[in-house]
Amino acid sequence: MRTKAIQFLSLIGLIVFSNTNIQAQKNAKEPLMIAEQGSFAVGGTVLKSPGTFNPQKPTAEGQTFRGDHAYVFYQIPVKARKYPLVMWHGIGQFSKTWETTPDGREGFQNIFLRRNFPVYIMDQPRRGNAGRSTVASTIEPTPDEQNWFNVFRVGMWPKYYEGVQFAKDSATLNQYFRSMTPNIGTIDIKVNVDAASALFKKIGAGVLVTHSHSGGMGWLTAIKNQNVKGIVSYEPGSGFVFPEGELPKPIASSAGALEASSVSKEDFIKLTNIPIIIYYGDNIPEKYSENSGADGWRARLQMARLWRDAVNKYGGDVTVVHLPEIGLKGNTHFPFSDLNNIQVADLMSQWLKAKKLD
Amino acid sequence: MRTKAIQFLSLIGLIVFSNTNIQAQKNAKEPLMIAEQGSFAVGGTVLKSPGTFNPQKPTAEGQTFRGDHAYVFYQIPVKARKYPLVMWHGIGQFSKTWETTPDGREGFQNIFLRRNFPVYIMDQPRRGNAGRSTVASTIEPTPDEQNWFNVFRVGMWPKYYEGVQFAKDSATLNQYFRSMTPNIGTIDIKVNVDAASALFKKIGAGVLVTHSHSGGMGWLTAIKNQNVKGIVSYEPGSGFVFPEGELPKPIASSAGALEASSVSKEDFIKLTNIPIIIYYGDNIPEKYSENSGADGWRARLQMARLWRDAVNKYGGDVTVVHLPEIGLKGNTHFPFSDLNNIQVADLMSQWLKAKKLD
Repeated sequence: MRTKAIQFLSLIGLIVFSNTNIQAQKNAKEPLMIAEQGSFAVGGTVLKSPGTFNPQKPTAEGQTFRGDHAYVFYQIPVKARKYPLVMWHGIGQFSKTWETTPDGREGFQNIFLRRNFPVYIMDQPRRGNAGRSTVASTIEPTPDEQNWFNVFRVGMWPKYYEGVQFAKDSATLNQYFRSMTPNIGTIDIKVNVDAASALFKKIGAGVLVTHSHSGGMGWLTAIKNQNVKGIVSYEPGSGFVFPEGELPKPIASSAGALEASSVSKEDFIKLTNIPIIIYYGDNIPEKYSENSGADGWRARLQMARLWRDAVNKYGGDVTVVHLPEIGLKGNTHFPFSDLNNIQVADLMSQWLKAKKLD
Repeated sequence: MRTKAIQFLSLIGLIVFSNTNIQAQKNAKEPLMIAEQGSFAVGGTVLKSPGTFNPQKPTAEGQTFRGDHAYVFYQIPVKARKYPLVMWHGIGQFSKTWETTPDGREGFQNIFLRRNFPVYIMDQPRRGNAGRSTVASTIEPTPDEQNWFNVFRVGMWPKYYEGVQFAKDSATLNQYFRSMTPNIGTIDIKVNVDAASALFKKIGAGVLVTHSHSGGMGWLTAIKNQNVKGIVSYEPGSGFVFPEGELPKPIASSAGALEASSVSKEDFIKLTNIPIIIYYGDNIPEKYSENSGADGWRARLQMARLWRDAVNKYGGDVTVVHLPEIGLKGNTHFPFSDLNNIQVADLMSQWLKAKKLD
């Protein structure tokens, strides 16, 4: 009798085990179950021309112009987790940052939808689908791709870094360079932060995921809006804010000096209320290097550590992770779309879980 | 015995019937089952600056610039139908045209995903997320919204048309106006048609869904690429192509004269190989009107009918539907996002079915 019971239990065990395996294998190809998806504009301002609108001979007179809003595309999966992820691109980029990778794999948009997070992807004001700018601009097609190849640490043009987590075929490079789009008008930090804050006002509590140039604007968004419950920042590039009177010296690099900026002590303290994690990739020189594309990141990583120490000194919870130090090698400026982006996403998932943000 | 059998069958019948009802009611709220989704750039060109790239002091010298591609976001539902729908925005617009409606309902993107069509939404070169333009441009924020309100036939600013299929709250109007984004550089018909054709080369056979300004470019795309198996065109605004020597006279309107353009007889004949349907909405004057916003559409509807007759004369299959004539009243220039857009989608579904394109 007992023997039979044991045989029976083992059988159950086998079934469960094999099912688990099948799940693991199928996972990447399972359909995305989207409970809701859509898009909207948020924030922004309205210009008005004096005079009276003449419908027969329309001029600007008496007409309005809405601009400087952010554009957001969102997807909410079934069985959604509590906090949505708001993903904010970096310099010269737009929503594509988080979508299909240059070599055609799934980016953070799909990866975190599969992990049941609502995903909101933002085009900041005057960028991509949020192109209606309240300021005039002239845009020149200026060849710049070889420089981005270096600055984004894919390699030293035309050489790829050894072991870089980036596919080396020309189709990938073509998609990579076409993932950029110009700013329509000057980049206005306040305009961008206001729009990001308006988004958090609309959707409520969530986690902000920033990249590069949006890193600094992310700190300001969290200061402005308490609905930002945590920040995951990939390679923040500038805008490290310190309390007035406590700014570190500029950090020299062959890409130029990196300066910190200041906020009031009162505002700075707000950054101690939420968990923040910062990730940097590989191929960042340890000492001053004439490779200005890479050397700028040495300065930024150094500044990020000073900033971590400053926030934590006041009781904050900031972690800086230099990926090679924990065994993830070859990451570029875009770890979330690199060849090992599943591992990069796993690190983020573990942190969100540890901070009870999932 | 027989009685019991009959009772049993009736019972089955009842169950099936009630299930069908529940399905019908739940449908709008069922999750979208997405087998695959992503984005990519397609088409475009590459500029190269002479000289040698200097990584230390980077200038344009020796660098490249990729631009004039289209950007595409696609979703393929489970149990997908044979032909994907490629949706192409109109003047001043971008992918938003097909996404969430200004009043927050589902647009054609979701509606046709629910009907199991793969949906590819395109931003044409130099627009929205495809902003990397190979030509320079200066963009001025020019107040223009009251004029668009009239031209898009929402009403005669500030009055809405009686019975217009457009929500009258200010939040809707705000989203509506923020759904526009400027062109970055001149609108280049050939550049746009080349990119659209490159998309059909990549994805294979499909159905093109155009709006307004993309209408004319849609005919040219079908002439260029045989993978366009049918066209659904909402309110095509210009670019009606006729065989050389067979152009109709320009049609006068208070918005200016509408002229046809010409293609070779050989190219024109290609338009007779696919089914094409054209829809126009309501509030288009029947005779010359001083309301130039609306009167332009009288000329375009008239030109569309001349074009239909020309294509059909050579054995084509073009249908022009003036929605009020079949009982759909109050539609604006954007029937696919109007309040009755489900009915508008039903008409499209019926046509696709009739033409064996579903």
